[in-house]
Amino acid sequence: MKVYKTGVTTPLGYKSAGVHCGIKTRKLDLGLLISQVPAISAAVFTTNKLYSPHIDIDKAHIKKSKVQAIVVNSGNANCYNGKKGYNDALSLINKAAVLLKVKPAAVLFASTGIIAKLLPLALMNKKLPKLAKKLSIDVKDEFSHSILTTDREVKQIAVSFNIYHKQVTIGGCIKGAGMICPDMATTLCFLTTDAVIKREALKKALNQAVAETLNMLTVEGDMSPNDSVFIMANGLAKNKLIDSKGKSFTQFKKALVYVLMDLSKKLILDAEGATKLIKIHVKGAKTLKDAKKAAFSVANSTLVKTACYGQDPNWGRVVSAVGASRVYLKPDKVEVSFDDTLVFKHMQPQKYDINKLAAIFKKKEIDINVNLHCGNKEATVLTCDLSKKYIVINAHYRT
Amino acid sequence: MKVYKTGVTTPLGYKSAGVHCGIKTRKLDLGLLISQVPAISAAVFTTNKLYSPHIDIDKAHIKKSKVQAIVVNSGNANCYNGKKGYNDALSLINKAAVLLKVKPAAVLFASTGIIAKLLPLALMNKKLPKLAKKLSIDVKDEFSHSILTTDREVKQIAVSFNIYHKQVTIGGCIKGAGMICPDMATTLCFLTTDAVIKREALKKALNQAVAETLNMLTVEGDMSPNDSVFIMANGLAKNKLIDSKGKSFTQFKKALVYVLMDLSKKLILDAEGATKLIKIHVKGAKTLKDAKKAAFSVANSTLVKTACYGQDPNWGRVVSAVGASRVYLKPDKVEVSFDDTLVFKHMQPQKYDINKLAAIFKKKEIDINVNLHCGNKEATVLTCDLSKKYIVINAHYRT
Repeated sequence: MKVYKTGVTTPLGYKSAGVHCGIKTRKLDLGLLISQVPAISAAVFTTNKLYSPHIDIDKAHIKKSKVQAIVVNSGNANCYNGKKGYNDALSLINKAAVLLKVKPAAVLFASTGIIAKLLPLALMNKKLPKLAKKLSIDVKDEFSHSILTTDREVKQIAVSFNIYHKQVTIGGCIKGAGMICPDMATTLCFLTTDAVIKREALKKALNQAVAETLNMLTVEGDMSPNDSVFIMANGLAKNKLIDSKGKSFTQFKKALVYVLMDLSKKLILDAEGATKLIKIHVKGAKTLKDAKKAAFSVANSTLVKTACYGQDPNWGRVVSAVGASRVYLKPDKVEVSFDDTLVFKHMQPQKYDINKLAAIFKKKEIDINVNLHCGNKEATVLTCDLSKKYIVINAHYRT
Repeated sequence: MKVYKTGVTTPLGYKSAGVHCGIKTRKLDLGLLISQVPAISAAVFTTNKLYSPHIDIDKAHIKKSKVQAIVVNSGNANCYNGKKGYNDALSLINKAAVLLKVKPAAVLFASTGIIAKLLPLALMNKKLPKLAKKLSIDVKDEFSHSILTTDREVKQIAVSFNIYHKQVTIGGCIKGAGMICPDMATTLCFLTTDAVIKREALKKALNQAVAETLNMLTVEGDMSPNDSVFIMANGLAKNKLIDSKGKSFTQFKKALVYVLMDLSKKLILDAEGATKLIKIHVKGAKTLKDAKKAAFSVANSTLVKTACYGQDPNWGRVVSAVGASRVYLKPDKVEVSFDDTLVFKHMQPQKYDINKLAAIFKKKEIDINVNLHCGNKEATVLTCDLSKKYIVINAHYRT
């Protein structure tokens, strides 16, 4: 597998662009991603029951038609704006469709940013022609820039691999920052591939890959109303058709997991105020649900996260978070390690080198390992530490 | 009902004291509370499955015997210390029993503070005689001081009321600060009463009152391994026996709820770094479980908490937290208000006075009201805002 630093325009037949339309101050805030030929597509959306109107529209379009373009804006989530928000999204899609000479159902739309503010539709419409004119393989990554909110940097990757001697490529970019949680929080993620793949196989691969990556991370436990992951597959690689099972499906899914895991890590490290990546691995659980529950309990513990930020090896907070998770466990069997340094077993501290442990807490990535010794199920959750900067960013997000 | 500023020594027949034994620097860290006559007792403990050893000991003592004394230390949780921690707790209880001339089973013990550090037993034993000698009605509140960790101030209250013309009094004090969550987190709470009450009635009243108060608050979602609420009833008020039902039970429970609600609010306002009390009231839920789930989802949202801290009326975060809670709801029916200012209905913002809303966010207490309009169940959860100071306190708790 070859890995590239470029993103969504790496696979054959994709172009993108980003412009500043005036939602944000100075920064790029309107993006467009197109496939030169109609592409089948799939998406995973937030499980928040009070969600943004673009989600219903996109679901309908993906079901009805092949897709050729995605329009996205940042700085305004167009969420909780009632019927007006829905109509604004539709209106923008229609404008883009006319401009790009495709059916409205071939256009998807996504928004991210502040909630409950109407889209400045006139500003956005005005910049659509410029956006279309700028479409290119986008060497300046303007599309990946245009989707950002409080993110510090562009997060993208692409990989290629062979399916029966034909090179297939997957590219992607993501925005995140706050409200990041299982079921994908404030995430917008755009994936492209030139693979020839069945619609059902694309859907299955995306669902499984998201479950193993984006849905296993949390920043602060908040789940946003706008989260969306989109994938388009335009078939230009001319590989042998990938079906819902078999070797080529496995290859495709593996590459997709690689892309999404890379984007997940970048997203965590670029989370609001984050200084460290924390990986919580729970094994020996009786059920997969228990493994996830215990891992998320540790990952969402603000006490664990602040200890990591403060580089304070206060491992009792990890044990306590496991105990609080209501999973099946036998107290005497629970083990907690940092990297391979065992600190807790038989309900008491183990002999360990305190300097070694302190050094682990100083690292940019902290691995917390929990073994419940009650079964053979395991789960890994990614999170970040909780810093003063997170509070500063979120105390005045709108003001 | 009469309300007093004094605490656990307000009911007849209780004495208490606090001393500095050397666990903490300079501050009081060892406390003793006694009843002059044997008292029936009840307790509610943490649901954390990896808990402190004092809990098993206390449970056995409460079941076996009337109780006459509670020893408590702060600064060291004596938790995750294995068999040694259990034996240390027993040893201290035995020492106190000899000194106070009571059976060991008449003594309870509780610890709070840093996890996974052995108790400095010699220091504690050495100060027990001084502690016993100082026992009094404790006008300086040294007992309530001795239980504190990162708390800023003593939190106590007492109330008295009449049962068939006999005055009955309930007193209490609490410590909290961090790790506060439903199921009582890091809380240690001591309650005393001179009521004549059946053991079963005392247990029932305590369980119900805790469920309505301490278990409906959250600071950051962490549940500590040491949480304990104790109540002693020594019968010195000589009132007509309170049974598990009837008017006098209702009176007693009402007074107990009053005491615990007052302590809960004080605990929230004294939470680490807290600047505001936030009350989330969810009504119109299909089930009580849904009402609680939605209220806790809002209460545990760090985005909501940081917005309250920043006095930023970012109500979209409340709507999003409700949507993320996975409760039964119909999007179009959900209403969100702050005090009586309706901001969200029919999935869109309502017309409201932005200055009035801004003023609400500047208040010391913020009332968030959610109506799901899907049923008639309701729940109220208390929490506080999340400030920079919380991070500072928790990033270096041990160092």
